[in-house]
Amino acid sequence: MKRGVSRATLISDGASLGENVLIGPHTIIYDNVSIGDNTVIGPNCCIGEPLNAFYEDDEYVNPPLIIGNNSLIRSGVTIYAGSDLGDYLEVYHGTVIRDETIMGDHCKIGINCVIQGHCTILDYVRIHSLVEVGLKSKIGNFVWLYPYSILLNDWNPPSNTLVGVTIEDFAIIGSHAILYPGITVGADSLIGAGSHVREDVPKESVMVGQPARRICHIWDVKLRNEHTRGYAYPWRFRFERGMPWEGIGYDQWMKDQK
Amino acid sequence: MKRGVSRATLISDGASLGENVLIGPHTIIYDNVSIGDNTVIGPNCCIGEPLNAFYEDDEYVNPPLIIGNNSLIRSGVTIYAGSDLGDYLEVYHGTVIRDETIMGDHCKIGINCVIQGHCTILDYVRIHSLVEVGLKSKIGNFVWLYPYSILLNDWNPPSNTLVGVTIEDFAIIGSHAILYPGITVGADSLIGAGSHVREDVPKESVMVGQPARRICHIWDVKLRNEHTRGYAYPWRFRFERGMPWEGIGYDQWMKDQK
Amino acid sequence: MKRGVSRATLISDGASLGENVLIGPHTIIYDNVSIGDNTVIGPNCCIGEPLNAFYEDDEYVNPPLIIGNNSLIRSGVTIYAGSDLGDYLEVYHGTVIRDETIMGDHCKIGINCVIQGHCTILDYVRIHSLVEVGLKSKIGNFVWLYPYSILLNDWNPPSNTLVGVTIEDFAIIGSHAILYPGITVGADSLIGAGSHVREDVPKESVMVGQPARRICHIWDVKLRNEHTRGYAYPWRFRFERGMPWEGIGYDQWMKDQK
Repeated sequence: MKRGVSRATLISDGASLGENVLIGPHTIIYDNVSIGDNTVIGPNCCIGEPLNAFYEDDEYVNPPLIIGNNSLIRSGVTIYAGSDLGDYLEVYHGTVIRDETIMGDHCKIGINCVIQGHCTILDYVRIHSLVEVGLKSKIGNFVWLYPYSILLNDWNPPSNTLVGVTIEDFAIIGSHAILYPGITVGADSLIGAGSHVREDVPKESVMVGQPARRICHIWDVKLRNEHTRGYAYPWRFRFERGMPWEGIGYDQWMKDQK
Repeated sequence: MKRGVSRATLISDGASLGENVLIGPHTIIYDNVSIGDNTVIGPNCCIGEPLNAFYEDDEYVNPPLIIGNNSLIRSGVTIYAGSDLGDYLEVYHGTVIRDETIMGDHCKIGINCVIQGHCTILDYVRIHSLVEVGLKSKIGNFVWLYPYSILLNDWNPPSNTLVGVTIEDFAIIGSHAILYPGITVGADSLIGAGSHVREDVPKESVMVGQPARRICHIWDVKLRNEHTRGYAYPWRFRFERGMPWEGIGYDQWMKDQK
Repeated sequence: MKRGVSRATLISDGASLGENVLIGPHTIIYDNVSIGDNTVIGPNCCIGEPLNAFYEDDEYVNPPLIIGNNSLIRSGVTIYAGSDLGDYLEVYHGTVIRDETIMGDHCKIGINCVIQGHCTILDYVRIHSLVEVGLKSKIGNFVWLYPYSILLNDWNPPSNTLVGVTIEDFAIIGSHAILYPGITVGADSLIGAGSHVREDVPKESVMVGQPARRICHIWDVKLRNEHTRGYAYPWRFRFERGMPWEGIGYDQWMKDQK
């Protein structure tokens, strides 16, 4: 890959690009954007998208957007000003990340997602396509969100009192799951596809239904396929692609951390 | 903001721009588009997107698209030819508005929505992200649609007999709600998240479930948060951000209307 | 329509364009893309989008992407390298088609969909907006997928054992339907909106609910509208727009095939 900047790209003089950055054609980099080393920004992106005040106030200053090192932002992504995103981030086509999003390292966000901002997302989070992360959400490490899952924040819509969802480390949120405002999904829990979760979920719970009920401990879930046998959860002992324990296993990695 | 048109923008000679319009780079304005005063069109938009016949018929004439005054169309939006949109409209990234959409003033449409056209949307409607408004829908004033809600139109898919949903003033449609073809949601009603509504909803009803049932009158819903007490609905007496009664309250505004 | 290529378009020398192709402004055509005769590619598209290895490996060669004849790709579409798409394809705005997608002729894909790749889609398939087709899906001829429907592939997420959904000819998948990993939906079946289908569906079944249950044979469903009477399914005897039997009826068309 030849690194550099396409002629058709519009980059503000007030943006700061690291070493070896690649920026695709028809991409716009606004004021006050900082992009780390070795990061790729694809075509047709808007990076540092101004807040609405930009269009109303001549004195508007774009709040800083920080994109880390070694990240890959695919075509057609919009990232608002005013966020702080970690290293090794991947974001796919059509996704929008709004302001006041704080994100850790090694996260992946799929296609056509909406991250509404004013939220915190820690390390190694996997957000599949078409997910909506509502305002004020708090997402732990190694969390998985599947398509059409949503984190709500308003018990009495429309209101001025938004309370975000909290998802603890290693939890898995199935496709089409609805997480109600302010609930906490405990660590390692599994929320089944299409479940409507209205109350706090104790850690290591399997929740299913509308409304969702706890049907078992995650240790009770057996793998369901012809090639492997045994128990499915916690998933970190059987899945490692893209995880920091890839190639060595979770136990060894934990030992190495000490 | 310096008003004007980016060099990279492609604007048809057959388009008409009002005073003080701003058009972002890589945006295309097709024939027969009229844009009102003080309106901003962001980057990477297609405004006046031709109907399919454009590609089949050399004599094709793009039907008129009217975008009102003081509107804000964010990056990556596609608006088809053949619609009439009001003043003070806001549309966010990745949303598509198809032909024969008639929209009032002061509407907001979120990210990655699909407005299928042949529909009517009155004033001050709030459509959150990832919503699908089906063909032939009729949406009243001050209606709220939350993410992944859908307005269906075909009882026997696929068929040639589409019947749209009608939503009356002040109704609230929760996230992931499915509104079946041809039903009417009465004024001020609240459709809970994930509800599947198969029949007409009397005004001021709270509907929940799959299929949805009326669980109470909206007057029975208490606010659910630590900061405020009292009853939640009708919402217009406790919520005013962006509404015409902002700063004076709904009662005073109603008096002023007379 | 004047055929040709916009000045603002970036086309690789390693791409091959058929006769009478039209390519919109701000569209990128990558290496090793072949586009058939009379096909239109709209503005702001990425065609032959490279796989991730493009950004990691200097020796990367873009796998071939074949787009057939007489196709219409609307603005803002991303199609990855490494797929083989048939003739008369229509794809709408914001949709992404990933690698290893094999598609037949005369398919239509709506707005903001995600086709995850490694899947097979036969002829005359209709995918409405905001649909997610998971990895390893197999979709037959004349299948309909409505908005927010999803084809899952992982019983124990996250895992390394993906098993795709199979949908047989003429089946209809309602809006917000969840099809669980590895199931087969039998020919001519109708999956109601919002249904969660966890087991194989026998052909000609009507399935409804969470979890979905078989409520009747498709022959038992009467048309529900004021203009027509009679039975609704199989739909091919009463619906023909865009189908190969348009104007002659299904029976005649079947006779002509012999």
